[in-house]
Amino acid sequence: MPYYFCYKIALYLIRHIYKMKNSLIAHINKFVKLDEQETELVCESVNLVTVKKKQFILKADEVCRANYFVSKGCMRLYFINGNGQEQIMQFGIENWWITDYWSWGTGQPSNYYLQAIEDAELISINKKTYEELLLEVPKVERYFRIILQKVHAATMRRIEYSRDQSDEERYRQFVALFPGFVQRIPQYMLASYLGFTPQFLSKIRGKRESGAKSQESRKK
Amino acid sequence: MPYYFCYKIALYLIRHIYKMKNSLIAHINKFVKLDEQETELVCESVNLVTVKKKQFILKADEVCRANYFVSKGCMRLYFINGNGQEQIMQFGIENWWITDYWSWGTGQPSNYYLQAIEDAELISINKKTYEELLLEVPKVERYFRIILQKVHAATMRRIEYSRDQSDEERYRQFVALFPGFVQRIPQYMLASYLGFTPQFLSKIRGKRESGAKSQESRKK
Repeated sequence: MPYYFCYKIALYLIRHIYKMKNSLIAHINKFVKLDEQETELVCESVNLVTVKKKQFILKADEVCRANYFVSKGCMRLYFINGNGQEQIMQFGIENWWITDYWSWGTGQPSNYYLQAIEDAELISINKKTYEELLLEVPKVERYFRIILQKVHAATMRRIEYSRDQSDEERYRQFVALFPGFVQRIPQYMLASYLGFTPQFLSKIRGKRESGAKSQESRKK
Repeated sequence: MPYYFCYKIALYLIRHIYKMKNSLIAHINKFVKLDEQETELVCESVNLVTVKKKQFILKADEVCRANYFVSKGCMRLYFINGNGQEQIMQFGIENWWITDYWSWGTGQPSNYYLQAIEDAELISINKKTYEELLLEVPKVERYFRIILQKVHAATMRRIEYSRDQSDEERYRQFVALFPGFVQRIPQYMLASYLGFTPQFLSKIRGKRESGAKSQESRKK
């Protein structure tokens, strides 16, 4: 009888691991088509990491050793500025890669903290394995080139918007682009990411809600 | 006798083209090692573009069709903000790639202007040829993946500095990192890139020069 339970638990774990790794394989296959052997090589090269809400997987002054694909949950990458305030550089939700590319690339200690905002399931790949995998499977090299090209284009647009839009315009655009995501994160984190104070964000949200209410009462 | 001159001119042009393309090949070979056939394929895929100071190779509302490697000279990528002011997003000097990755990737019209600050020699590759070359020569795919990873890491640091450093700190860091480059560009362009007014930059420079003079007089 205990054998039966062990068997069931093992089967559950295998299915869970398969499901997690499958989210990465599905994402890669959106850009390149891996064959069976290549899929196997990718699965052998990555590790699964489960993190609880508020848990850190990187802290400032540590060297960032891995790149993380978010299979489930939400992560944030931030640093502490000269005034002791948290400054969020990036969020990572399902199907996004998140890491400190600078520390990962140079092997120098990071300025950043990488922390779970929600319980999360991550697929990690360390630097050495990543370099080996990319040489062994050129399609994965291609996948990362495409992803990095898109991420760089988006980061340049982020700088452009910060130069061209008011804080309020930037907030409204973010909400329009990621409506579901805004519901998942605390207000002060969104303010930090967009580069303004939580008080300013409350003011904008207040204006928006009172606007919606007055529209409703007009309809009645 | 005219044949001799034609021969000399053709030889000069071939040598010039070879020298220009050679700067790109040398840059690629810093990251991957191309063999003779791969080198030939790269050289066949690119075009040479010579631009005069102030000449545009991209204007807002046009689709950005190519990525440009700067072989000689200096380029700038900028947009006009809501107040009608130029906002410089990127400079491109020798051995740097410059393009609007967003327009280039999506085929949508660009918001940007790409203009020569000095007479420049560029090596361009258009989107279709780039995609074909990367499939044909995986080492070039690898080269662009490495370049994009470095560029993305640098762009993230740029956002970090803009959140953490004062305007003066940002200026001093830029001068320390690129001392020669600061001499090559007009003051108002550097101010636009760093996100502050030319007046503010004059003030910082004035402070710096008067500091240097008082140090000199103390030595005397």
